[in-house]
Amino acid sequence: MAKEDVRVKNIGLRGVAVADTKISYIDGENGILIYRGYRIEELAERSTFMETAYLLLNGALPSAGQLERFERAVAQAREIPALVLSSLERFPKNASPMDVLQACVPMLGTVDPDLRDTSREANIRHAIRLIALVPAVIAAWHRLRSGEKVLPPDASLPHAANFLWQLTGKRPDLQMAHDFDVCLVLHADHTFNASTFACREVVSTGAHMYAGVAAGVGALSGGLHGGANERVMRMLLQVESEIDSPDKIASWVKNKIDKGEKIAGMGHAVYKTVDPRATILKEISKRLAKETGHEAWYAYLTRIEDEGHKEFAARGKSNIRTNVDFYSGSVYAMMGIPVDIMTPIFAVSRISGWSAHIIEEKFAEAQEKPALYRPEAEYVGHYCGVIGCTYEPVSQRG
Amino acid sequence: MAKEDVRVKNIGLRGVAVADTKISYIDGENGILIYRGYRIEELAERSTFMETAYLLLNGALPSAGQLERFERAVAQAREIPALVLSSLERFPKNASPMDVLQACVPMLGTVDPDLRDTSREANIRHAIRLIALVPAVIAAWHRLRSGEKVLPPDASLPHAANFLWQLTGKRPDLQMAHDFDVCLVLHADHTFNASTFACREVVSTGAHMYAGVAAGVGALSGGLHGGANERVMRMLLQVESEIDSPDKIASWVKNKIDKGEKIAGMGHAVYKTVDPRATILKEISKRLAKETGHEAWYAYLTRIEDEGHKEFAARGKSNIRTNVDFYSGSVYAMMGIPVDIMTPIFAVSRISGWSAHIIEEKFAEAQEKPALYRPEAEYVGHYCGVIGCTYEPVSQRG
Repeated sequence: MAKEDVRVKNIGLRGVAVADTKISYIDGENGILIYRGYRIEELAERSTFMETAYLLLNGALPSAGQLERFERAVAQAREIPALVLSSLERFPKNASPMDVLQACVPMLGTVDPDLRDTSREANIRHAIRLIALVPAVIAAWHRLRSGEKVLPPDASLPHAANFLWQLTGKRPDLQMAHDFDVCLVLHADHTFNASTFACREVVSTGAHMYAGVAAGVGALSGGLHGGANERVMRMLLQVESEIDSPDKIASWVKNKIDKGEKIAGMGHAVYKTVDPRATILKEISKRLAKETGHEAWYAYLTRIEDEGHKEFAARGKSNIRTNVDFYSGSVYAMMGIPVDIMTPIFAVSRISGWSAHIIEEKFAEAQEKPALYRPEAEYVGHYCGVIGCTYEPVSQRG
Repeated sequence: MAKEDVRVKNIGLRGVAVADTKISYIDGENGILIYRGYRIEELAERSTFMETAYLLLNGALPSAGQLERFERAVAQAREIPALVLSSLERFPKNASPMDVLQACVPMLGTVDPDLRDTSREANIRHAIRLIALVPAVIAAWHRLRSGEKVLPPDASLPHAANFLWQLTGKRPDLQMAHDFDVCLVLHADHTFNASTFACREVVSTGAHMYAGVAAGVGALSGGLHGGANERVMRMLLQVESEIDSPDKIASWVKNKIDKGEKIAGMGHAVYKTVDPRATILKEISKRLAKETGHEAWYAYLTRIEDEGHKEFAARGKSNIRTNVDFYSGSVYAMMGIPVDIMTPIFAVSRISGWSAHIIEEKFAEAQEKPALYRPEAEYVGHYCGVIGCTYEPVSQRG
C-alpha cells in the first residue's frame, strides 16, 4: 500500500545517510574516528574533555582565553537548581539513574532563564549548563540514593576530577582524574547513533535543547545502546565467579558463540575492525588493573577479546571486534564507579556531542532538508479498502 | 566521504518508508485516514476515545466486557503519584506545560511498580497508566499554575468529560463532552509523524515506554509539530483584532501569501487534499460557534480557508489545504481551554497512538530490522585525511 520507495524499510536506517554533519566522522572499515577533523587518538592523548567539548560545540579548538572562559562558565553552572534538588530527594531510591536523569533534564529547562531565547548563543549557553549539570545531577542522585549528603562542587578541581569527587566523596589522584577525563573525551561524540539521532529528531520540530537531550537520555537508557558497558562488567563478574583460571576462557567463549550468544562489548554497527576507542581504553584498563590490584580482570578481558576474535573469525565473522564498551566497564569499576552509573557516565560525556548535534540541527547553513524528520511507514495491517472496515456497535460484537 | 547511499539525505525522511506498521494508514492523495482498518469518519461518528485507544493498542475493537474493563482500568489509574504532585507544586509558574509534562513522564515511570516487567501485558498496563495520567498531570499543572486547587477525578464522568472537569473545574454538558471526545479520537494516531517516530526510535534501543513517551512529548513540543493549533488560534485572535469584517480577509490572505508567508493550519507533509479530520472539526467548530456566540471566529476561519485555497491554487499549489490544526484551536478555545494547553491536549489524545506504536516497535512479529534505529550521516566538515588535522597545543594557538 506504500507508494513510497521501501528500499530502506525495516533496516533501522543502517547505512542510510539521513543528513550532513560537520561534527564527527567514522571510517568503520579502518577503525578511524574523527571529531571536527581531529583523530580521536590525538585528542585522547593531548586534549581534555573541556577542550574537546568546546571543539565539538564551536567547530574549532579554543584559544587559551576561550578555553579558560569556557571552563569557568561550566564550573559556574554546576549548582543544582532547588526545584531539581528537591525532586531528587523524593525519587524512589531504587529508581534507575537514567530515568532520574531523563526527568531532571526538562526540569532544568523550566528553570533556565534563557530558555525562550532561540539564538545560537543562547543554545551554547544551554549546552554549557547541561555539560555542567548532567554530571552534577547524576552525582547528587547517587549520593542521595546511598543515604549520603550531596556534595558541593569543588571549584579547584577540573571537570572530570570534580565529578569523581561529587560522586564518590574522594578526590581522585591526578592519574585517575586524567584517565577519567580521557574516557570522557572518547565518549563525547559518535555521529548519528540512536541517542544523538533522537536528540536531532526531537529538536528538528523546533523543540528546545532540553527537550531534545531528554530524548537522547531516553535512547541511551535502552540496553542495546548505553547498556553495553554495564553488560560487559556483569559478564566479567560472572566469568570471575564461575571460572577459576583465564585458561578456561577459551572453552567458555567457544561454547557461548556456538550457542549463538553474543559477547558483550564485541561487534559494532559501524566498525568492522577494532574500535579505536577500545585500543585506548585497553591501555588504561591495563595500567589501572596493576595499580588497583585487578590484574585478573584485565587478564580475563584480554583472553575473552582474543578468543572471541579467533572464534568469530573461524566462523567468517572477523569483523566482530571489541568496541568502546569492552574495556570501559572495568575501567570505571576500578575507579570505584557502581555498575549502574556507567551508562549515566556515558551521558556525562555524550552531552557534549548531543548539544553540538542539536545546535547543528537547528542552525546548519544551507540546510536543504524540510525542517523536521517525518518518515513514513508501510501499512501492512487490517484493511478493507478505502471504504474502511464495517464498524459493528459494541452490543453486536462477540 | 560517505560510502553510503545518500538518496534519502537531507529530506527529513519525507516519503521514506522506514518500517512496517499495522496501526494506521494515510492515503494523502485522497484524504483518507484509517486506524486498524477503520475510517476516521466512522470512528469519530460511532466510537469513543476509550474504545479507539483500545483498538489502537490491541488491534481490534473490544467486546462490551473488554471495553468496560479497559475504561475501569483507566479510571482507576488517574490518581497522580505523590512524587509527581509534589514536583508539580514546585515548577516555576511560567513553565511551559509541555516541558512540565516531559519531566513528569519519566517520573511516572520511576514510581510504576511494573516498570521492569518487559512483557507485552506490562506494556499495555504502562499504556493504560499513561492514558490516565497524561491528562491528569496537564489538568493538575494548569490548576496549580493558576493558583487553584488540583481537582480529584470524578469517577462518574467518562474520560473526556473528566479531563474537562479536572482542567476547568466545570462539568461539561453532554454535547461538549462528546465533541471533546471526538477531538481525542481524531488526534489519537497518525502513523510515523515526528513525535511517534521519536517514541519508536527511543524504545528501539530497549528503553521502556516512559522513556519513549518523554521523547514523543519533546518532539510534540516543537512549534513545527504540536504548535500549529496554537498558531492558528493566535492568527485568529490577531485577525479578529486587526480586521473588522470577514470581507477584508481576502486581501489579508492574499497579502500574506504574496509575501511568501504560511497560513497557520494549511498544508501538510502527507495530505495533498483536505485533511479528513479538518472536515469533522469544521462541523464541530460551526456548531460550537453558534452555541457559544463565537460565530465571528467561524466566519473568519472559513473565509481564511476559502481564500487561502483560492490563492494557493492560483499559484499552482492547490494541494495546500486545511489540516487537523486549522479548526481544532477554535474548538478548544470555545470549550474554555487556554491556548497553551492546546498542544498538551494533543498529547492527551496521542498518548494512545504513541503507546500503541511503542508496543508495536517492541513486539512486532517477524521483525526483520536490526533492533535499533542507527542511521548515518555524511561528513562534510573539516578534514585532513585519515591522519587527522594537526593538534596545536593551546599555548601555540592564535
